[in-house]
Amino acid sequence: MNDIDRREFGAGLSAFAALIAAGAFSASTTAQERPLHASSHDMPGAPASWRGREKIVFLIYPGFTALDMVGPHYMLTNLMGTTTQVVAKTMEPVRSDTGLMFSPSARFEDAFTEIDILCVPGGADGTLAAMRDEATVAFIRKAGGKARFVTSVCTGSILLGAAGLLDGYKATSHWITKPLLPIFGAVPADGRFVRDRNRITAEGVTAGLDFGLSLVAELRDRTYAEAVQLLAQYAPEPPFDAGEPERAPKAAMNMLEQMFAGFVRDMMQAGREAYVKSRKL
Amino acid sequence: MNDIDRREFGAGLSAFAALIAAGAFSASTTAQERPLHASSHDMPGAPASWRGREKIVFLIYPGFTALDMVGPHYMLTNLMGTTTQVVAKTMEPVRSDTGLMFSPSARFEDAFTEIDILCVPGGADGTLAAMRDEATVAFIRKAGGKARFVTSVCTGSILLGAAGLLDGYKATSHWITKPLLPIFGAVPADGRFVRDRNRITAEGVTAGLDFGLSLVAELRDRTYAEAVQLLAQYAPEPPFDAGEPERAPKAAMNMLEQMFAGFVRDMMQAGREAYVKSRKL
Repeated sequence: MNDIDRREFGAGLSAFAALIAAGAFSASTTAQERPLHASSHDMPGAPASWRGREKIVFLIYPGFTALDMVGPHYMLTNLMGTTTQVVAKTMEPVRSDTGLMFSPSARFEDAFTEIDILCVPGGADGTLAAMRDEATVAFIRKAGGKARFVTSVCTGSILLGAAGLLDGYKATSHWITKPLLPIFGAVPADGRFVRDRNRITAEGVTAGLDFGLSLVAELRDRTYAEAVQLLAQYAPEPPFDAGEPERAPKAAMNMLEQMFAGFVRDMMQAGREAYVKSRKL
Repeated sequence: MNDIDRREFGAGLSAFAALIAAGAFSASTTAQERPLHASSHDMPGAPASWRGREKIVFLIYPGFTALDMVGPHYMLTNLMGTTTQVVAKTMEPVRSDTGLMFSPSARFEDAFTEIDILCVPGGADGTLAAMRDEATVAFIRKAGGKARFVTSVCTGSILLGAAGLLDGYKATSHWITKPLLPIFGAVPADGRFVRDRNRITAEGVTAGLDFGLSLVAELRDRTYAEAVQLLAQYAPEPPFDAGEPERAPKAAMNMLEQMFAGFVRDMMQAGREAYVKSRKL
């Protein structure tokens, strides 16, 4: 949108609109092009409160759920001035659980040393495998130990827990894995997403949109977040009311519970083992 | 989830749960691994009405908005038995407008010859560039001309219009570009997404989730879609009520309108030119 930025600047558009424009369409791209440099979208005349320097790290791993990551990524990359990394174990393309192929922008060892926001997406078998992978859990523990905000979507909170990052924190997860949180010393709490000090854990998959937009408001202000919401036309109209266990038809609920019973057992065992290991790191 | 599928089959789990499991975590991955083959997740004993053979094509192009595509991709890849392609002009990784890098699974010339669902995501400058790219518009026109469902999210409907696919159809778009629809002979209509015969156009960005889940219900049934919604924990709680122009604070609305005035002018001109060209194809 740079040409438009200029044109609108010439027309005397407010600095705020320029910030949104930069945040919405340029900042994060620039960030990905030069992931180890700060964004160049530092608009002259922009209110200091709308100008940021956040370094954001999204973890991806084979079998992660793309929507867990892309939802908050959309919202947070609207933060003008941020620099974003998509970090994986290697630079090889990473396949999501629905078969999308993502190219990472950095490896674990090249991730920012100072992280403002670490975001860990969830998944099913892929998250189980990630929890069994010592290098992945060690990265989460190291990056999360120093990040300003340690966040997750869906079963990503189980990875945070396995890395020992939820000890004594209120947290949530996908409803299927929420009962596992006490294994990691976490206290299951209600809410679309749960904030306890600098830990923010969101419910399943689509909750990343609500968590991401809320964090935009906290890191800038409400007006900024409302403009981002309007840009995303985020006025959801789910065709049915089955998004939460309390409201879903019992048949579907029971079937998913049965279907994932084996998965939950595997996650519990792998979680316990990873948790014990990570506390020795 | 295959091992879990087997375990749960052994436990006598209903075929429906197996379908969801397959659709949710395996079918589309298999599809991407073998994009030119039908999915192998044809569960014995599954009700025929829950078993599909849909071939789904998502178009991606430089600067597309990832969330426009990933939202419906999540919902539609939960359709058991489907085969999905992520199609681009070349096999090079494609950068989204927020800097995410996606690897296509097929080029234009390798896209399915019989397409059940074509889904075209939107964007800003990237969508403008795509509309100016004759090969991209020609692909949309050719693929959309024979697809069972021709769908779009956000400004993707402007690409459909430019390709001559919305002539005489009711349609919608991102609120910023919705006024451009008459250029293409389309009739702007209200709704989170608009269905007219086999054309389904969704509003901005996040509307792809609502459109995608609704199409799941149409292609299977309501119970199936409710299970997918529960799996996505799609019970949105936007922190603010600024997602639609009618409800957004006037300040943010005016600023976005001004910010995109130049973009809308460019889209209008490029759209007219592409529309004239595509009608001669």
